[in-house]
Amino acid sequence: MSGNSFGRVFVFTSFGESHGPAIGGVVDGCPPGLALSAADLQRDLDRRKPGQSRHTTQRRESDTVEILSGVFEGVTTGAPIGLLIRNEDQRSKDYSEIAARYRPGHADYTYDQKYGRRDYRGGGRSSARETAVRVAAGAIAKKYLAEHAGILVRGYLSQLGPIRPASLDWDQVEQNPFFCPCAETVPRLEAYMDDLRKEGNSIGAAITVVASGMPTGLGEPVFDRLDADIAHAMMSINAVKGVEIGAGFACVEQKGTEHRDEMTPEGFLSNHAGGILGGISSGQDVLVRIALKPTSSIRLPGRTIDTAGHATEVVTKGRHDPCVGIRATPIAEAMLALVLMDHLLRHRGQNAGVVPPTPPIPA
Amino acid sequence: MSGNSFGRVFVFTSFGESHGPAIGGVVDGCPPGLALSAADLQRDLDRRKPGQSRHTTQRRESDTVEILSGVFEGVTTGAPIGLLIRNEDQRSKDYSEIAARYRPGHADYTYDQKYGRRDYRGGGRSSARETAVRVAAGAIAKKYLAEHAGILVRGYLSQLGPIRPASLDWDQVEQNPFFCPCAETVPRLEAYMDDLRKEGNSIGAAITVVASGMPTGLGEPVFDRLDADIAHAMMSINAVKGVEIGAGFACVEQKGTEHRDEMTPEGFLSNHAGGILGGISSGQDVLVRIALKPTSSIRLPGRTIDTAGHATEVVTKGRHDPCVGIRATPIAEAMLALVLMDHLLRHRGQNAGVVPPTPPIPA
Amino acid sequence: MSGNSFGRVFVFTSFGESHGPAIGGVVDGCPPGLALSAADLQRDLDRRKPGQSRHTTQRRESDTVEILSGVFEGVTTGAPIGLLIRNEDQRSKDYSEIAARYRPGHADYTYDQKYGRRDYRGGGRSSARETAVRVAAGAIAKKYLAEHAGILVRGYLSQLGPIRPASLDWDQVEQNPFFCPCAETVPRLEAYMDDLRKEGNSIGAAITVVASGMPTGLGEPVFDRLDADIAHAMMSINAVKGVEIGAGFACVEQKGTEHRDEMTPEGFLSNHAGGILGGISSGQDVLVRIALKPTSSIRLPGRTIDTAGHATEVVTKGRHDPCVGIRATPIAEAMLALVLMDHLLRHRGQNAGVVPPTPPIPA
Amino acid sequence: MSGNSFGRVFVFTSFGESHGPAIGGVVDGCPPGLALSAADLQRDLDRRKPGQSRHTTQRRESDTVEILSGVFEGVTTGAPIGLLIRNEDQRSKDYSEIAARYRPGHADYTYDQKYGRRDYRGGGRSSARETAVRVAAGAIAKKYLAEHAGILVRGYLSQLGPIRPASLDWDQVEQNPFFCPCAETVPRLEAYMDDLRKEGNSIGAAITVVASGMPTGLGEPVFDRLDADIAHAMMSINAVKGVEIGAGFACVEQKGTEHRDEMTPEGFLSNHAGGILGGISSGQDVLVRIALKPTSSIRLPGRTIDTAGHATEVVTKGRHDPCVGIRATPIAEAMLALVLMDHLLRHRGQNAGVVPPTPPIPA
Repeated sequence: MSGNSFGRVFVFTSFGESHGPAIGGVVDGCPPGLALSAADLQRDLDRRKPGQSRHTTQRRESDTVEILSGVFEGVTTGAPIGLLIRNEDQRSKDYSEIAARYRPGHADYTYDQKYGRRDYRGGGRSSARETAVRVAAGAIAKKYLAEHAGILVRGYLSQLGPIRPASLDWDQVEQNPFFCPCAETVPRLEAYMDDLRKEGNSIGAAITVVASGMPTGLGEPVFDRLDADIAHAMMSINAVKGVEIGAGFACVEQKGTEHRDEMTPEGFLSNHAGGILGGISSGQDVLVRIALKPTSSIRLPGRTIDTAGHATEVVTKGRHDPCVGIRATPIAEAMLALVLMDHLLRHRGQNAGVVPPTPPIPA
Repeated sequence: MSGNSFGRVFVFTSFGESHGPAIGGVVDGCPPGLALSAADLQRDLDRRKPGQSRHTTQRRESDTVEILSGVFEGVTTGAPIGLLIRNEDQRSKDYSEIAARYRPGHADYTYDQKYGRRDYRGGGRSSARETAVRVAAGAIAKKYLAEHAGILVRGYLSQLGPIRPASLDWDQVEQNPFFCPCAETVPRLEAYMDDLRKEGNSIGAAITVVASGMPTGLGEPVFDRLDADIAHAMMSINAVKGVEIGAGFACVEQKGTEHRDEMTPEGFLSNHAGGILGGISSGQDVLVRIALKPTSSIRLPGRTIDTAGHATEVVTKGRHDPCVGIRATPIAEAMLALVLMDHLLRHRGQNAGVVPPTPPIPA
Repeated sequence: MSGNSFGRVFVFTSFGESHGPAIGGVVDGCPPGLALSAADLQRDLDRRKPGQSRHTTQRRESDTVEILSGVFEGVTTGAPIGLLIRNEDQRSKDYSEIAARYRPGHADYTYDQKYGRRDYRGGGRSSARETAVRVAAGAIAKKYLAEHAGILVRGYLSQLGPIRPASLDWDQVEQNPFFCPCAETVPRLEAYMDDLRKEGNSIGAAITVVASGMPTGLGEPVFDRLDADIAHAMMSINAVKGVEIGAGFACVEQKGTEHRDEMTPEGFLSNHAGGILGGISSGQDVLVRIALKPTSSIRLPGRTIDTAGHATEVVTKGRHDPCVGIRATPIAEAMLALVLMDHLLRHRGQNAGVVPPTPPIPA
Repeated sequence: MSGNSFGRVFVFTSFGESHGPAIGGVVDGCPPGLALSAADLQRDLDRRKPGQSRHTTQRRESDTVEILSGVFEGVTTGAPIGLLIRNEDQRSKDYSEIAARYRPGHADYTYDQKYGRRDYRGGGRSSARETAVRVAAGAIAKKYLAEHAGILVRGYLSQLGPIRPASLDWDQVEQNPFFCPCAETVPRLEAYMDDLRKEGNSIGAAITVVASGMPTGLGEPVFDRLDADIAHAMMSINAVKGVEIGAGFACVEQKGTEHRDEMTPEGFLSNHAGGILGGISSGQDVLVRIALKPTSSIRLPGRTIDTAGHATEVVTKGRHDPCVGIRATPIAEAMLALVLMDHLLRHRGQNAGVVPPTPPIPA
């Protein structure tokens, strides 16, 4: 395996398995001078943390992060930032039954095919537990973006199975365990999840992530476009099967007159582009939407094969999220922040001194 | 600008503007021993070439590619392969009217903001003309995959505005200028495009790309998952606003029992995963679907600003595709082939000698 | 700061400061199936460890490494390997006197200039303490190379100040604290170092590193030649000011007839090339020699400036190595092993299936 | 083969064989706004060009470079710069005799071993002809460094066989075909080379390259130190066997009091460090010295094997440089400029806004 690093000048490297001693990572390329402490990372870690409502896995992890390097006297020094989170609540014995059989729709089979062996305890490296460190790293990026570039990254649950929020109120997002932006929708979500849990099944979801206060000019054509790197980042999140920027798939049925965002001296008149034109940020909000599949770790039996290739059935008894989308909002925010941070630094380096031809128009 | 390279061990670098002297590129990392000539690249270039029907831009380019290096006595040597395509039919004067104003929905504005200057002739670097070289590079990857790994990469138009093919017949795809897999749907597409052209408008589209004959094991968790790199590749194509793997956004409303692809000794029973589990190929077909927006270069006037920031109107009189999706099938195939080639070589290097625990099951 | 990763497919990322809570790193891209435990890394860590003789710094660190991930049931899984070494014996107060003044010849000044701040405790990130994690990572590479590719990487002290070993006996290297390959030379080294310590001064040294059992074909022209990557690796070691491959600087006065290594069916007749031709390994031993400067942290006063720019004097009272070359042999071995491992995997990926035209000749 | 790209944010990719249709490359990441024309590159190409005196190969190449992209209205746009040089004087038939046998000390053997085939015409990809494109790319970097950062990169021949220049006069360097900085030494070089040519032999050389006007702060610890990247760049030049920074190998016999460069408010008192401390530029001149081996393509017969593995003799009759060091000065300058340009942009991106604690001291 390689491919555990993300970014080109603001580089995040991740390690750790679900049931190993620890997960952790390294953030390399953070500019010096950012005020930073473990508490700054803990807030987002707590938002992602399991076991905070009956709707997520009951695994108990404090997800306490330790900053091992790169910060001196409360401020980043420019040196790489080492991050460590010890695993605490591993019940590896839960997995003995599935050690020799593959969960359909799970990485069990492909890891075995690729590596010739796998850490079957809780999914090993393929577990969503790995995303905790992404959230810690993303919190560093979010803090820098907010304090030194005026960029705000935030997200919400935009769909869970058949249910969509009836309205978008940012103030509601942190008031419920679903990151749902509509208070009236929450009871429907709770009822749906309670039924689902009884059924022993799982469900898909969609998350929307938004970056506001964007500068113009982030993104490097042609392959490292801002939208291409965002797509990469989002599709790297466990369970994601689709990514949209701005209008997304709706653009297939749009005409040019409808899709194009007309411009006036007062600003753009719409945002079908999702804040990115030709791979470069336009100053409008960056709008991203992702689809997350229902987890394959469910209590309802399914047909599968064992590691010897024989037909069998599998039932997953471990502690799992019936909707991985519920805890995905902080993860998606983290990944968007990592992309923006990388592109902010890339743009700065190559375009220092360039004066834009006109003042950017308001978003 | 940087970001004009794609891939990690099979690396493609691209250069060139729409109205400069030439476009070209370098393919670095092609294994030695592949039989290769310019004619092998020309077939896909001709499929993408403009002016082949009344439904695409009437710009006339022979798109003749020259191989400058890396091939000796008809076979690749392992040295980098230089590719060159001279531009022939540049009518740069068509663009004098838009030199000082921005097309809404186009990269005009963001290039000016990022670089402080831009090549306004035909979009310069942001033009889809750049994708011709991707097609040439992708043809090298496709040939290697087909001849040395048994992988077949192909695509088709899966939607154009409101029209979807009524059936999927691979034999039809090359029989019409739309890459439509259904002969009965073609007249409807023609009529739709004729109306659109008269109207002076443009329309979105969706393309589906499929890789068959896949080995298991391609993809490097956690950030360089096969699906993440595919998303990156696809979103780097001009006009793409959405990417789906397998079930894509449909998974949001699927339950776990419905989405998971059950396994038997005879193979998987469905393919909602799109051939990728945990970021690693499962041996099933890789299924990718992308959304392309309607082009912003249309004859119908739109509100915009000029480079001094004043309100104005813009009309695009150059020769443009009213539906960029029509010519996008070879481009999407090329990008998928580049990703698969890169991952094939990455996987080989790290896992040489690893014996999978069981024979892979049929797809 | 970025640049804390090394390698392209076998990637090592390092973090940590001399007087922070810990140093550590991540090895990404290790093939699955390598038997590995912390004890395998400890041997080389102990060879590099300070305080093992009166000739090195008296800082006491057990340098106990913990493997945090990537190993399951005693064998690597292909997942990234997290490494952690807690710092134990930080006497940061030793450094209060130099916090506001720069040691001549030290990174104090440049870190302040680059980052606008620095961790002055023991050199922070610029301390040679960071190399302990390189040694741990290199031990993984050395083990894989030895067990799965038949390559042996080892080194020795080839000069210390004016003293060169009188003979090369590999069996002697581990028998003395200098890694000196000649037993008769050891008393001279001891006497020299005792005098130097009394004087309060420091001295330079040269290390030779050799890889035996080399396959042909490692190295990727033109920029990632094997020798270019070795030069990069070696010059990245603290205090190194020169790198030679094979004949090195002696080739300046050699004629072609003298330098070229003639070939016979029984093998090469000499090895001025140092085992690398055109950037690619020839199968002969890879021969590398590096020069390490005398440390700038000495007890003899020197002219310098303080952080306000005023003239002052500096004396270093911390615990320092009077000859950093003494402990550099394991570090140089580690870096060479990291380069070879990376190139072994790169070569495998791109050239799987290629049959060499003739059996390689013996070295 | 991969590894034909150099740099991380200012990225140069090279392609082409000695006797193929052309050599060329792509410079990606050049900031917009640099005035640039082909003539700016031609000056350095002419300095490196063969056949300018009787002391270099008599192959006749005009080395005329064409800029294919990235420049609009005489100024760089930020888009990648495509470079093309057609080969003109290929006498491939000269090589028929060596097609089936290996030149000792040449890449013939290793290319065959690595790739299973090789382009034997003039060394193919391993030929020094490839360096012409490096010189063109380096000229772009040199121009940017000079005009936008005040950095001057230049070099000279510091040794040829046993002969060293008696003095260093920069004004003399361009006045003779050796890039020798001492007019009095030139006749000795001419006589030496005339004798060598008659003998049919070749000789090694050393080149010194210097960057003046350096800012502080370039270089990214720990692996991408400025000196490590310089060592990489220099060792990637054909025939280079050794690299020194500042005092280089002389530091092995230096004591700390001698090597350390003391500092005063008026500047450093010496420059043994070669302008780099802890991998970061100090503002002093960067001093680099490289050793180039004697070419293996000589008229004097040597023992070797043929491609079937049988013993034979080889004599090289093609047109070759008896001292490749003579034309290496522009190449070494180009590589140093590429490294500095990359690090300038990297530093800018990550440290924008950082105020150094004190004004840098004069060099």
